[in-house]
Amino acid sequence: MKRIAFDVMGNDNGVRPAIEATIEFLHNNLNYYFILVGDADEINKYVKDNERIKIIDVKETIDQNAKSLSSRHVETSMTTAIKLVRDNEADAVLSAGSSAVYLTQLILILKRLNKIKRPAFMPVFPTTKPGKKFVMLDVGANIITTYEMLVQWALMGSIYAEIVLKINQPKVGILNIGVEDNKGHEYHQLAHEQLKVDQKINYIGFVESRDLLKGNFDVVVSDGYGGNLVLKTMEGTVLSILTLIRDNLNQKLKYKIGALLARGAFSNVKRQFDYRNVGAALVLGVNGLAMKAHGSSNKKAYLGAFSQLSNALDNDFWTKIKDAFT
Amino acid sequence: MKRIAFDVMGNDNGVRPAIEATIEFLHNNLNYYFILVGDADEINKYVKDNERIKIIDVKETIDQNAKSLSSRHVETSMTTAIKLVRDNEADAVLSAGSSAVYLTQLILILKRLNKIKRPAFMPVFPTTKPGKKFVMLDVGANIITTYEMLVQWALMGSIYAEIVLKINQPKVGILNIGVEDNKGHEYHQLAHEQLKVDQKINYIGFVESRDLLKGNFDVVVSDGYGGNLVLKTMEGTVLSILTLIRDNLNQKLKYKIGALLARGAFSNVKRQFDYRNVGAALVLGVNGLAMKAHGSSNKKAYLGAFSQLSNALDNDFWTKIKDAFT
Repeated sequence: MKRIAFDVMGNDNGVRPAIEATIEFLHNNLNYYFILVGDADEINKYVKDNERIKIIDVKETIDQNAKSLSSRHVETSMTTAIKLVRDNEADAVLSAGSSAVYLTQLILILKRLNKIKRPAFMPVFPTTKPGKKFVMLDVGANIITTYEMLVQWALMGSIYAEIVLKINQPKVGILNIGVEDNKGHEYHQLAHEQLKVDQKINYIGFVESRDLLKGNFDVVVSDGYGGNLVLKTMEGTVLSILTLIRDNLNQKLKYKIGALLARGAFSNVKRQFDYRNVGAALVLGVNGLAMKAHGSSNKKAYLGAFSQLSNALDNDFWTKIKDAFT
Repeated sequence: MKRIAFDVMGNDNGVRPAIEATIEFLHNNLNYYFILVGDADEINKYVKDNERIKIIDVKETIDQNAKSLSSRHVETSMTTAIKLVRDNEADAVLSAGSSAVYLTQLILILKRLNKIKRPAFMPVFPTTKPGKKFVMLDVGANIITTYEMLVQWALMGSIYAEIVLKINQPKVGILNIGVEDNKGHEYHQLAHEQLKVDQKINYIGFVESRDLLKGNFDVVVSDGYGGNLVLKTMEGTVLSILTLIRDNLNQKLKYKIGALLARGAFSNVKRQFDYRNVGAALVLGVNGLAMKAHGSSNKKAYLGAFSQLSNALDNDFWTKIKDAFT
């Protein structure tokens, strides 16, 4: 039985999507067990007796706007959930709470993985090639990035792509503003030179943000600032263009009929490029398996997060990443 | 008569699109005069006698892969075109050659505008609001950025939005990975505090990349690294999603018929979000009006660049920006 500690608080939409997603996931995944941490009065509104759900009542939540460190001494639904992994009462932890606070608490409670300088957020991205995905890390855990971090993240991402995405010799790239050797910051160039000679990594080179969605890379490493800008630009651009198309299709009856006929094609595109799923990111580099869900996750987004997390658990990703850094 | 010095070399597609665009533009804009600089044998293949076109024969071009500074002493089509502005023989210069080389040569030949620390590339972006555009600077001229640069660029962009885009009290934002005061690098926070109290600028605050296309800002300032990532992410995402939609629409006859009926709607979207036009960027902060066109500009892209450049010239933007910094 795999056990997931789930901080159900800290979501803009309340606890309901978390509980509904949990019940649906457990229905389809008989070897999973959830420990829901949060306000039990709220949780019990949506959950019936379920032998694979345990509820831990913690009403205290972290102020989303608090500085990450000031909340160090307060016991919250988030810290309680993380401690379940530390104490080996859960195999993974999931939260939709504030990224900065979550990251700080993960580092404080679980500690960093051996040798790892800084953890990174790693979401999975769709591409225009059907079924083809890639991971990018970091997308916002770190503002200041060094080349050593990029090299470590390249290895963690590469192991994930191999073990979980089942890609043989995953193609690794460094996000940059050009593909020539002399482009970008000094840390880009230093990591570039080091990865070129790294035997454990199938390093291809720099990749520009305009080429990310073509699906030619399996793992892309980036400073957290640049990765975050790119992630949110994609999200905003996909939403903007789909909205613009919908508005234009509504302008004439002829267009509306056309849209009705072509509806299936649009559904395919929306399914393939659903950026709600990209909101969920593994937090790699702490001493335990941890995932961050989008702060306004709906049921579908949580199901996406569970699916990613269970892929990692079912493939024993955690053991492999731990072994690689010891 | 407004005079544009046009380096027609350094385009991946040869000189033909440059000449064809020039002839079409001159036909519709009787108060313009072009000085085409480049290989006269090539240019003369496409141009007939035109009293508003002068040709300067310079066959030497800059090696696109050369380090920017090593080409300092070679006379090329690019340097010749820039010198026409310096010597007051042209009112503006346009080139599609290498960004890094162009920037270096502009600074060497024209010098920086009084007080300006570093020039910036400033393209105009479309938004989902019909007819609404915004400018972002810098998008790649500078890797290392300080808060003083962001503040200067905010003023230059604001003047452009007011004078050329005719926006009263343009809304200015700083691109960042969150909207809270403590987000981003130190230079984000310092520029944020300074712009808050700047009387000359209508500063709104930080803006996240996912919100750029909503059209709530007129001017967005960014470090060149982040701006370049965002620009190219938008370009790649728009292209990817339109390609994906087209591929899906081709999969079934029913979809094809639907697409045919809805064709007008798609044309509107493509027109509104044509990222070929975004390739053209003003180079603000040097002592003269300069524009960089996309390295693989076609005729349409050049016409877009001419249109932007003539908007600036017709509104006497250059005088106003010069006055603001003296």
